[in-house]
Amino acid sequence: MAVYTEVGDEEVAAFVAEYAVGRVVACKGIAEGIENTNYLLVTETATYILTLYERRVREEELPFFISLMEHLAAHGIPCPTPLHGRDGQALRRLNERPAAMVTFLHGMSPRRLTPEHCTAVGEALARLHLAGANFPLRRHNGLSVDSWRPLLQASARHEQEVAAELVDELAADMGYLESGWPAHLPEGVIHADLFPDNVFFQGGNLSGIIDFYFACTDFLAYDLAVCMNAWCFESDGSFNVTKARRLAGAYQSVRPLTAAEWQAFPLLAHGAAMRFLLTRLYDWLHTPRTALVTPKNPVEYLQKMRFHRRVRSPGEYGLDVDRAA
Amino acid sequence: MAVYTEVGDEEVAAFVAEYAVGRVVACKGIAEGIENTNYLLVTETATYILTLYERRVREEELPFFISLMEHLAAHGIPCPTPLHGRDGQALRRLNERPAAMVTFLHGMSPRRLTPEHCTAVGEALARLHLAGANFPLRRHNGLSVDSWRPLLQASARHEQEVAAELVDELAADMGYLESGWPAHLPEGVIHADLFPDNVFFQGGNLSGIIDFYFACTDFLAYDLAVCMNAWCFESDGSFNVTKARRLAGAYQSVRPLTAAEWQAFPLLAHGAAMRFLLTRLYDWLHTPRTALVTPKNPVEYLQKMRFHRRVRSPGEYGLDVDRAA
Repeated sequence: MAVYTEVGDEEVAAFVAEYAVGRVVACKGIAEGIENTNYLLVTETATYILTLYERRVREEELPFFISLMEHLAAHGIPCPTPLHGRDGQALRRLNERPAAMVTFLHGMSPRRLTPEHCTAVGEALARLHLAGANFPLRRHNGLSVDSWRPLLQASARHEQEVAAELVDELAADMGYLESGWPAHLPEGVIHADLFPDNVFFQGGNLSGIIDFYFACTDFLAYDLAVCMNAWCFESDGSFNVTKARRLAGAYQSVRPLTAAEWQAFPLLAHGAAMRFLLTRLYDWLHTPRTALVTPKNPVEYLQKMRFHRRVRSPGEYGLDVDRAA
Repeated sequence: MAVYTEVGDEEVAAFVAEYAVGRVVACKGIAEGIENTNYLLVTETATYILTLYERRVREEELPFFISLMEHLAAHGIPCPTPLHGRDGQALRRLNERPAAMVTFLHGMSPRRLTPEHCTAVGEALARLHLAGANFPLRRHNGLSVDSWRPLLQASARHEQEVAAELVDELAADMGYLESGWPAHLPEGVIHADLFPDNVFFQGGNLSGIIDFYFACTDFLAYDLAVCMNAWCFESDGSFNVTKARRLAGAYQSVRPLTAAEWQAFPLLAHGAAMRFLLTRLYDWLHTPRTALVTPKNPVEYLQKMRFHRRVRSPGEYGLDVDRAA
C-alpha cells in the first residue's frame, strides 16, 4: 500500500508515448497493492493502472502474470487487461523497473463482508478456474506446503519471544500438514490471494478481480480454501458457516468438487491458514520499523488455524456432500 | 504522502449521495498531500478529489480554505473548486473527520525544473495575489517570524547532537530576522507553500495550483520569496539566477513590487528559508520512525539560508530595480 518508486512527469510522458492511448492528463500514485508501485494514469482517452514491479516480484515471472491476465480477460473474467505498446510489447521499463499498463476496473473493495459478497466470490472463483483450464503456462506455488517449514524456522530463529511459543504450537500442525498433504487433486491456475482487497464490487455486483502476482499452478480446491479463510471469518475470530455455505455453494454451482477434493478440504483450509500465518509472522518479525507498509498481525490467522484443528468433517465448512461429484 | 484514514465502500457511497455527481465508480487512496488523506474519486459524471482533514488541520480554519479556493477559482485561478452538496454545504464529515470534495485538476508536477516553469509560476503567483485582493476572510500566518524562535527552542531541547550545532549557527540569523522583519508591506492572501509538488503542468502550461492548507494573510512578497527558495536552487545547493530572473520578472510583469518590497526582499528570502528549515528540522527530530511520512531533510534549507546570509542587494535575486514601482 505504498508508492515505492516516484516517477517524473517526463518519464511517464515518454513511457505512455509508446502506447496508442493519447497524452497523459494526470498520474497519481495510489495506495493499492502491497508488493508493487501503482499509479492511476489518466490519458486523453481513458484511465489506466501503471504498475512498476518492485524487487519482490521476480522479473522472469512477469510474462506468466501478464499472459494470465490477458488469457482470463479474454475468457470473460473481469480482471485487468495488459495494454500492448506500438512495438507489440506489454512489458517495458520505467525508472529502471519492469513496468506495464493495464485497464482500470470500476468498483470498490467491500469493507463489511456479507453472504451476498461470498456468493459472488465463490461463483467468480469457479469461473476463474474454468477460464484458466486451457492456460498453457505453469508457475510453481512457491508458498505451498514445502515452503512452510523453512518459513517457520526463519521465524523461530528470531529473537522475539512471542515467536518461540508460536513455533512450539505450530510444530504439530506442521507435521500433520506435511504428512497428509495430497499428492494429486484437480489442479490449474489459482489466484492464491483472493482477499476482499483484491475484489471490487459495484452496485452489488462483482466488477473486478485484481492482483494476480501470487497466481500459480496448484490445487483448485486450495484456492477455495484460501477464500474461505479470507471471507468467512468474523473479526472476532468466529467462523460464519452461512457465508461459507454461500461461498462453497456458489463455487460448486459452477464447478462441483470431486470426492477427493471434498475429503481433502479440511486439510487444505488448515494449510491455507498456515500459509498466511507464516508469511504474516515472517513479515511481522522482519519488516523494519521504518517500512512504508505496516505488516498485518499474524494473530488473526492463528485463530483461524485453531478453528481448523478442531474440524472433523468437510460438512463443517458448509460443503454440500451431494454435490461432491 | 499517505492514506491516514481508510474509508469503506458504504461510507463513501453514502457521502457521495449528498452531492449531485452520480454514483461512485471507483475510489483510490492517493499519495498526495502531506497533512491530509486524499482519495481520487471517480463517479458516473466526473473525477474528483475527496479530502479527509486530519488532525494537523484545525477544523475551525477549514471554512477559510474552502472559501479561498472557491474565491480564487471564481477569479480564474486554476485551483480545486469545492463542491456543494444538495444541502448547500461544502464541508461535511466522513469517518469522524471533516471532509470535502473538490474538482480534479489535470496535469503533473514537474520533476526537472526549467526556467520556463519559473516564468509560469511567477506569473501565476502574481495573478493569485491579485485575485485574492478582495477576498474578505483573514488568517494569521502561524508560521511567520514570531513562531520561529519557539520552533528553534523545541529543536534545541532535543537530545540529538546535530541539533545543538545547528541551533548555535541559527542564533545570529534569528536575531537578525526578528529585529529586521518589516512591520508594513503590501499584504493579502498568500499560498505560503507553492512548491513544485503543488503546481501542475500540462503540455508546457501551468494547469493547476493545489494544497491551500498553509494559505494565510501575510506579505505578498514573502510568498514570492518562498517560491524563489523552492524553484530557483539546484540540487547541488547553488542558486540559479536565470530561474530567479524569470520567476521575479514574470511576477513583476503582472504585479510590480513596491520599492519597500524590493528593499525587503533579501530579508524575506532569508526568513522564508528559516521557516522551512525550522519546520523540517522539527519534523526530522520529532517524527516517529514508524510514521507513514518520511520527513524531508532540513539540510537543503540550511544551504539556502547560508546563501541568503551572503546576499548584499535585491539585485542578486534577479529583481529588476526599474520595475520596483
